[in-house]
Amino acid sequence: MTLCIYFAAPAVWDEYCELLPALLAEAGIAAEVVTEVRDPAAVDYIIYAPSAPLQDFTPFVNCKAVLSLWAGVERIVGNATLTQPLCRMVDTGLTEGMVEWVVGHALRHHLGMDRHIVNPGHVWDPTCPPLARERVVAMLGMGALGTACAEALAALRFQVLGWSRSPKAVAGVECLHGDAGLEAALRRADIVVTLLPKTPETENLLDARRIGWMKPGAVILNPGRGPLIEDAALLAALDAGALGHATLDVFRIEPLPADHPFWTHPRVTVTPHIAADTRPRGAAKVLVENIRRGEAGEALLHLVDRARGY
Amino acid sequence: MTLCIYFAAPAVWDEYCELLPALLAEAGIAAEVVTEVRDPAAVDYIIYAPSAPLQDFTPFVNCKAVLSLWAGVERIVGNATLTQPLCRMVDTGLTEGMVEWVVGHALRHHLGMDRHIVNPGHVWDPTCPPLARERVVAMLGMGALGTACAEALAALRFQVLGWSRSPKAVAGVECLHGDAGLEAALRRADIVVTLLPKTPETENLLDARRIGWMKPGAVILNPGRGPLIEDAALLAALDAGALGHATLDVFRIEPLPADHPFWTHPRVTVTPHIAADTRPRGAAKVLVENIRRGEAGEALLHLVDRARGY
Repeated sequence: MTLCIYFAAPAVWDEYCELLPALLAEAGIAAEVVTEVRDPAAVDYIIYAPSAPLQDFTPFVNCKAVLSLWAGVERIVGNATLTQPLCRMVDTGLTEGMVEWVVGHALRHHLGMDRHIVNPGHVWDPTCPPLARERVVAMLGMGALGTACAEALAALRFQVLGWSRSPKAVAGVECLHGDAGLEAALRRADIVVTLLPKTPETENLLDARRIGWMKPGAVILNPGRGPLIEDAALLAALDAGALGHATLDVFRIEPLPADHPFWTHPRVTVTPHIAADTRPRGAAKVLVENIRRGEAGEALLHLVDRARGY
Repeated sequence: MTLCIYFAAPAVWDEYCELLPALLAEAGIAAEVVTEVRDPAAVDYIIYAPSAPLQDFTPFVNCKAVLSLWAGVERIVGNATLTQPLCRMVDTGLTEGMVEWVVGHALRHHLGMDRHIVNPGHVWDPTCPPLARERVVAMLGMGALGTACAEALAALRFQVLGWSRSPKAVAGVECLHGDAGLEAALRRADIVVTLLPKTPETENLLDARRIGWMKPGAVILNPGRGPLIEDAALLAALDAGALGHATLDVFRIEPLPADHPFWTHPRVTVTPHIAADTRPRGAAKVLVENIRRGEAGEALLHLVDRARGY
């Protein structure tokens, strides 16, 4: 039987109109996603933004759940007509994906994996790499994503320096700040991760001068924003052998143009902006999982407790 | 000035006679390591096993520390002649190295890194990989190393199945045991890690029949022992496309012979027995680090508290 899913959040429909049917199909759920409803009694699930025009949920007598696109539900939790189970949006996928990419590529460089993945000479050199506790990782940017990555790296015993514009305190991480802190972090780190928002202050943060502070052979991971690094300065440092490698997930122009030197540089790895899922994709996955659970009779994720109000 | 280091543990001297001088040189410490002493007052450090003949430490009047090769020091802590600072051996490097290799290669396969590391066609495919919480990792072997790896993978939100011969309980890990548990683990896992000791029971644990239980495209990581896997069965499953990849750190013959098909198989990565340092190497690193600290006036690692006795 084909489910009827009413997408009652017109402002963001264009972000979900292709994605949501695709993910439903991938999950093996036969469903039609509609933005207009003729027979409210035929609706199985409502996907909802609290800013949407829909305010009277009374006619949706067979609706199994209202799935909010917002984490905050304070604007709807008091709606007396909304008697269906209500779920809020909790998309931890963005953070989780970022942590996995950063930890994975940090370990890749730490362990020197590339020389085993590509080893045409069949070289057997049983020299063990150092331990993580002998490596320093600098996390430039200690927002939610940077902090989560710093904590995951510290849990693996890397020596983690966390740098931010203003002072912070994070357990297990040596926090530095300001201009002096940036210089110290860059001078000490074996692996530098750039995970800052793009602002006029962070643009070209890693320019020739600051790249010049980095340790010989150090590695850069950029899953943040392309303009954080001055491309020409990075290429010059890699060409000179001053830096060991750069693994880049974000670029000034995406997709990275076919003639960009990053594609062919032996010390650059390009990943195609996959470190963290986009917001609609992560959210759509949560919606689909909840519909799957609803149909399987399993407990819904992030069900709102009406008494507590969240 | 060249330090005089007295290696007073004759039973294990052959394991350290080349390693220790090499690591001291690497650390930039000018030192002579001797096994016989003419002038005890010239000795700077004593490396010691509690089973060794040396029992009277009185003549070593300039000795800056006694560095035990054993974790347990109960046989020497009561020796009234041993008035020098006494350090016990704590070598966590074996476990840490293993966790780093296992987590690193699990993330490598999870994230599909190889296709970005080697991407001659400059393919830009921004499809995000699934999240770790959507992947199942089976840890075959839940001893100290397997448990540490399972916990580290679970901390990154992988769904971890821990399999052992007899029942176990580890927080955050779904523990399975016995023959039925092995089949369930192999049928469910996207990534299978073999980290068992070599015994008559574990030899060829992954034979054609059991490899046949694995999910299409699943990956094997073997940092345990070469004979856990039947080489021909593994190669047949990789050739048939039934398995996705095998990353192997241990082999029946090491170094892996130049004509072994693992070297050239496109679905096999060979790492040269580097997942975890050998015992003497890890221990020697701790000794050298303590000598470095002693010379630099820094606090010694694992200093024994005589009052507590450890």
